Amino acid sequence: SPSPGTRDFFPEDMRLRNWLFGEFAAVSAAFGFEQFDAPVLESEELFVRKAGEEITDQLYNFEDKGQRRVALRPELTPSLARLVLQRGKTLPLPAKWFAIGQCWRYERMTRGRRREHYQWNMDIVGIPGVEAEAELLAAVVMFFERVGLSSEEVGIKVSSRKVLQSVLSRYGVPPESFARVCVILDKLDKLPREKVEEELAALGVPAPTIDGMLSALSSLTSLDQLGALLGYDSEAYNDLNRLFQLAEGYGYKDWLVFDPSVVRGLAYYTGIVFEGFDRAGKLRAICGGGRYDRLLGAFGGDNTPMAGFGFGDAVIVELLKELGKLPAPAHRVDDVVVPLDASLRPAASGIATRLRRSAARIFPTPLPPAPLTPVRHPFPNPHHPKHAEKLGASRLVLVGASEWERGKVVVKDLAKFQQEEVAVEELVRA
Amino acid sequence: SPSPGTRDFFPEDMRLRNWLFGEFAAVSAAFGFEQFDAPVLESEELFVRKAGEEITDQLYNFEDKGQRRVALRPELTPSLARLVLQRGKTLPLPAKWFAIGQCWRYERMTRGRRREHYQWNMDIVGIPGVEAEAELLAAVVMFFERVGLSSEEVGIKVSSRKVLQSVLSRYGVPPESFARVCVILDKLDKLPREKVEEELAALGVPAPTIDGMLSALSSLTSLDQLGALLGYDSEAYNDLNRLFQLAEGYGYKDWLVFDPSVVRGLAYYTGIVFEGFDRAGKLRAICGGGRYDRLLGAFGGDNTPMAGFGFGDAVIVELLKELGKLPAPAHRVDDVVVPLDASLRPAASGIATRLRRSAARIFPTPLPPAPLTPVRHPFPNPHHPKHAEKLGASRLVLVGASEWERGKVVVKDLAKFQQEEVAVEELVRA
Repeated sequence: SPSPGTRDFFPEDMRLRNWLFGEFAAVSAAFGFEQFDAPVLESEELFVRKAGEEITDQLYNFEDKGQRRVALRPELTPSLARLVLQRGKTLPLPAKWFAIGQCWRYERMTRGRRREHYQWNMDIVGIPGVEAEAELLAAVVMFFERVGLSSEEVGIKVSSRKVLQSVLSRYGVPPESFARVCVILDKLDKLPREKVEEELAALGVPAPTIDGMLSALSSLTSLDQLGALLGYDSEAYNDLNRLFQLAEGYGYKDWLVFDPSVVRGLAYYTGIVFEGFDRAGKLRAICGGGRYDRLLGAFGGDNTPMAGFGFGDAVIVELLKELGKLPAPAHRVDDVVVPLDASLRPAASGIATRLRRSAARIFPTPLPPAPLTPVRHPFPNPHHPKHAEKLGASRLVLVGASEWERGKVVVKDLAKFQQEEVAVEELVRA
Repeated sequence: SPSPGTRDFFPEDMRLRNWLFGEFAAVSAAFGFEQFDAPVLESEELFVRKAGEEITDQLYNFEDKGQRRVALRPELTPSLARLVLQRGKTLPLPAKWFAIGQCWRYERMTRGRRREHYQWNMDIVGIPGVEAEAELLAAVVMFFERVGLSSEEVGIKVSSRKVLQSVLSRYGVPPESFARVCVILDKLDKLPREKVEEELAALGVPAPTIDGMLSALSSLTSLDQLGALLGYDSEAYNDLNRLFQLAEGYGYKDWLVFDPSVVRGLAYYTGIVFEGFDRAGKLRAICGGGRYDRLLGAFGGDNTPMAGFGFGDAVIVELLKELGKLPAPAHRVDDVVVPLDASLRPAASGIATRLRRSAARIFPTPLPPAPLTPVRHPFPNPHHPKHAEKLGASRLVLVGASEWERGKVVVKDLAKFQQEEVAVEELVRA
């Protein structure tokens, strides 16, 4: 079996994964994003942060044979930041980049949880306003629509870290505690409230502040209330209000829900944060993201406005399965070429070559790859219609001695139960 | 910078990688192969063999936090074998599987060499005859043709381990030394002949055997000579002769060269072995493969006929670059939608949504993913034709107040230098 916590992808699993990644890539391309990738193995220091995040606590790190501290990446954003820094001023802004990559974590205690997943990321670099977040949310919604989900089945909770920041600064909590407070508050979903209060108290947040903060987060249910609380000229209100206006323009306002309890568990977010959720409330977050304008600064560069999201391959598949909307893509074979005796195998091989090349001739551009005709060429033992049907083939091309002498083959249409003799030159599909 | 020996893929690198992987996948699909994948991290024991292979000596292995010995996979074949074993008798044979995955190695001493590469593998399970190898070689040749290479630029050297086996058994070398002898002989390309002779002597191969073996390998230049040496009824001769007949049937005989010095450096090959090479002789092997009928047995299963190849992403790119045949795929943007003032951004967002959805409506089948229209939606600051041109856009859609009131936008065709007013409903491409 595979190493604990990792998955094998048998062909049927791989078809599903290719379908999912194809949807990720198609949406990214529709939004004009360019794909990048970075190594799955990075220097450990890229991921070590001191805000108590789960993602850092569960880092899959180790020492390599050269005594270098390395880690299997837990997320893609720090690598993106590294690439953006590397490019420096030569990177034309705004840049819109996406990636689909495997991410890892190591949990020592809990068993049965997976140690790897794939994540789709879309990020926009260089846009200070919520227009960036609006584009990102539009992409998430288009993905949901394409895989057959409606706004009654899923939604996206939206808030801003600026909400929490205002509340905290009112209570005099120092800004350097902000990231840690967010990381702790993010656990409200998973831990009992007392445990969260304990952790906040351990950080030095006074009890009245904890109470005030938690009640502000749970009592706010509309942007109007937010405006009334923080002021209609506050950044938090203005960002969120503008984002909802844009959502209306794009046509996806139905999918959004203002929810100030959303903070996300990553330390680096600075503004809008959001997470996709199933309206039935059964599953973990489907995806999550937000603005992180100070990550490049943390890596020693100049701060640059950035916003993005991560979208894992696990919860969405669970959800689609539960709703009966998960496709079961089939393996496609057009033709099966069968030599009727072993001496005709070279002839059948030549026919397979012709058929395989045929589609390539019709689509001469190599980008995206020209779809060649899938041709299964079986082996000397008789592989007859049953075998071809099992492969899902639509035609069976039989190469027999007497027809071959006349430059012909027998073509069986497996759907129509018809067969006819066809000249070899006419065999290639139009 | 990335961790030593690893690569970043900036968008321009990623486009090239996607092009290359797209060709790998297209050829695999044309041959009716199904894709699989396995974790990049596997138990170390899957890769540990005792034949002195470079691939095992340079294993990127380590102990994880649970004191488990794991390794970043150096090759895909052992994982494939694991999957085939896992499926057992429920796997319909013959199975034709392919994979494209990242593989790792760790070299302590040498600097500047890469520690990871991607490899395309195609494998056939369950075919004892050379018909399997013939299909695999046909796929390699179709790949070469599709990327614009000719049989004058590249070729595939073919031999069989059975040649060496016959010679060795004539000299009384015990069969258990066979794998080690092959691994040592494979170094003839890289090491001086004396060094190879030393290693063989250290293994206990007597000097006259070494001489006889090496002279047999270097003196045989045709299949006829092979038949004369080993007998026209020998397995080695018959396999190779049949393979060349099939190659003629497929139409790729020009690409093959019989070369008994090809042994390949992997311990597990048992029959036909082959490697792609540049005819100019400047580069390392482009790809390599062969038959390995006893690998499942080594993993504790029943031996099953298997043959396959690995095709790395490094040498082929070097070669295409050298020949001026490496494509430089461009980022594609169809439309750039520009709101002429900030208040029109919601309107422009709605137009972007329409445009992005348009192609999806034309191709309703989700498999392969319907190509959406790539639409770049810029941000409030004026992004004018120059910016759109830099993005490689073909149209600029300007959303201005006076046209918008009349339900219209201005469309600039950036190639034809024309612009016209278009009603929003007519904007979507036919």
